[in-house]
Amino acid sequence: MRNVFIAGIGQTPVSKQSAEEVRGLGARAVRTAIQHSTLEAPTALYVGNMLSGILSDQQQLGALIAHGAGLSGIEAATVEAACGSGGAAVRWGVMAIQSGAHDLVVVCGAERMTHVVRERTTRALATASDFEKEGSKGATFVSLNARLMQAYMDKYKVDNSVFAPFAITAHHNAARNPNALFHKEIDEKIYREARHVEGPLHLYDISPICDGSAAIVLVSEELAKQAKRHGQPLVQIRASSIGTDTLGLDDRERLLRLAGVERSAKRAYEQARLKPEDIDLFECHDAYTIMSVLSLEASGFAPEGKGFTLGLDGEIQIGGRLPLTTMGGLKGRGHPVGATGVYQLAEAYLQLTGQAGENQVKNAEIAMTQNIGGTGATVSTHILERVA
Amino acid sequence: MRNVFIAGIGQTPVSKQSAEEVRGLGARAVRTAIQHSTLEAPTALYVGNMLSGILSDQQQLGALIAHGAGLSGIEAATVEAACGSGGAAVRWGVMAIQSGAHDLVVVCGAERMTHVVRERTTRALATASDFEKEGSKGATFVSLNARLMQAYMDKYKVDNSVFAPFAITAHHNAARNPNALFHKEIDEKIYREARHVEGPLHLYDISPICDGSAAIVLVSEELAKQAKRHGQPLVQIRASSIGTDTLGLDDRERLLRLAGVERSAKRAYEQARLKPEDIDLFECHDAYTIMSVLSLEASGFAPEGKGFTLGLDGEIQIGGRLPLTTMGGLKGRGHPVGATGVYQLAEAYLQLTGQAGENQVKNAEIAMTQNIGGTGATVSTHILERVA
Repeated sequence: MRNVFIAGIGQTPVSKQSAEEVRGLGARAVRTAIQHSTLEAPTALYVGNMLSGILSDQQQLGALIAHGAGLSGIEAATVEAACGSGGAAVRWGVMAIQSGAHDLVVVCGAERMTHVVRERTTRALATASDFEKEGSKGATFVSLNARLMQAYMDKYKVDNSVFAPFAITAHHNAARNPNALFHKEIDEKIYREARHVEGPLHLYDISPICDGSAAIVLVSEELAKQAKRHGQPLVQIRASSIGTDTLGLDDRERLLRLAGVERSAKRAYEQARLKPEDIDLFECHDAYTIMSVLSLEASGFAPEGKGFTLGLDGEIQIGGRLPLTTMGGLKGRGHPVGATGVYQLAEAYLQLTGQAGENQVKNAEIAMTQNIGGTGATVSTHILERVA
Repeated sequence: MRNVFIAGIGQTPVSKQSAEEVRGLGARAVRTAIQHSTLEAPTALYVGNMLSGILSDQQQLGALIAHGAGLSGIEAATVEAACGSGGAAVRWGVMAIQSGAHDLVVVCGAERMTHVVRERTTRALATASDFEKEGSKGATFVSLNARLMQAYMDKYKVDNSVFAPFAITAHHNAARNPNALFHKEIDEKIYREARHVEGPLHLYDISPICDGSAAIVLVSEELAKQAKRHGQPLVQIRASSIGTDTLGLDDRERLLRLAGVERSAKRAYEQARLKPEDIDLFECHDAYTIMSVLSLEASGFAPEGKGFTLGLDGEIQIGGRLPLTTMGGLKGRGHPVGATGVYQLAEAYLQLTGQAGENQVKNAEIAMTQNIGGTGATVSTHILERVA
């Protein structure tokens, strides 16, 4: 199996009401990433997207964005795993290099969600649930996460305040990321007094609906060396995995254990021959604060029922033991769903190559990214390492 | 790069008004394929699907069908390339084995299109076009193909009758395939007198809207040997490629040259070190009769403007020089869009292992399958060889 490296990244600033179609957003991120890599001529493009068919009547984004980026003719296709689409597309890109089928592949995540009335977007997001058992009964992603959060609070006898540090940290880091949607810091008081949404969920427990695109250039060892000769900093992908679980919450053995996360993380650790304590920063899937807590537990960073303590103990901030969402995460940078997984790898690349600006995690050598579809049904995990 | 083999297949009969959800259809094909392979425990499932998010409010089919087939937890994701989704999913499955990431992968195509009013399906299919330039202007897949067919007839000064053999052959072969939608043979008179649809298109130029699922089991050489010890016939995948083109017809340099097909076929021939004349049968993408003709030309089986002569000369029938759509093709077996590409490989497997019943192509050693998204935007080509 050949080694795989990231040789360049591109991202559009996350926004609301993007004037650009998903084609334009994607093409811009792809072009930027190729230019940044100092390399040329990718032979494949894999695009992560969830909603374009439903909200924009446009499928085949692989070929569409390839053409938009001036790459018409190359191999291209789209990968869908709901909000985990971007990370799943990276998984294909990694295999394309590992197999020897390609030496230079671009993976792009692109999503546009704000050009239709909010009710349509909410309904479209419910397609990530088990529609027969959940979505068709009126469940939304808000209500499913509210249920998880309430169950967690009941079981472990904690109140909302234990979730605050995840939102506060995300907003703090986003304020220093020029590509983030939000540049407003929040504190405990703002978190606590924010608008109530559903069940235990308040406004700052929930990531925003928005538009954006990110891309990464994946290369073989030979091309990585070529980029290095051009002075381009590199990151190696040490692990790439997908784990799954049932879509429906009621089909799971244990409601509060994300088995898809557990499987995906376990496979990634095995591939990289690393343990949770080796990870220097973790771009977790903080679509909801409860998801961050459950992901920390299922990924082996905290015992069950103790994930929230990392927040309370100040360990998730930059400078802490395990910085999370270092460029703002889904909550602060924004969550253009099919693009999120690729943003995570682009940001981890910036961290590992010392280009994260004010949010730089010092001496970061190993980063983990994790992208989740639905309430934990399709989970991809990537472990990245700085190349000296 | 490791070798890849097909060790088993599964298919549901193509139908209209399937009582089963796409989850059930897919799970059934996957289970059948695994059982047929004599092997166990796939570690990945890639699902080709185009319309489930739009017509059934259900995304994440990878994880959903994995769970439905009793495989919850394994790596899974969905691939979308419009009507070319199934073939594109096979491409990922092939790389998963080639890379060494997996030894046993199932690829499934699944689609349900007939449970909603026809207008919704027609509109949903238009998402395969360049929606900004075509679909939003009222273009449908029928109208786009009518335009191609009319342009072909004008340029090469032929009438409708040259397309008849493609529909007649498909129906003839479908009548002998128990899994086909249609079991009714047609002749030139029936073709000629069929209901007019649009432009030069009549009923039998167009493949039907329907439901179905197919699956194939892909394995490494080691597992292929294990299956062989169980007496299981094997097929090797000698080539797997994707080529793309613009989605919009007006963005193409030459309207009547399918450049995506040309690129995809060229890459496949190079990988297999074979030429068009080495192919014993061709499962082409006969969504419309004009697509068969243009595919033959762009794949190197006929000079430009001469693709139709293979039909007139009787070369496309079983026993002819290049049998097409040997189990009925999209026209006769049916075209559940995201599933079609996988049906093609399942049928080629049956041919190469001598299990095609009355439709058996004698001494078939090399088969080619080709699956097209849109009017030629995303094209996957696979070349398969019998294993002695």
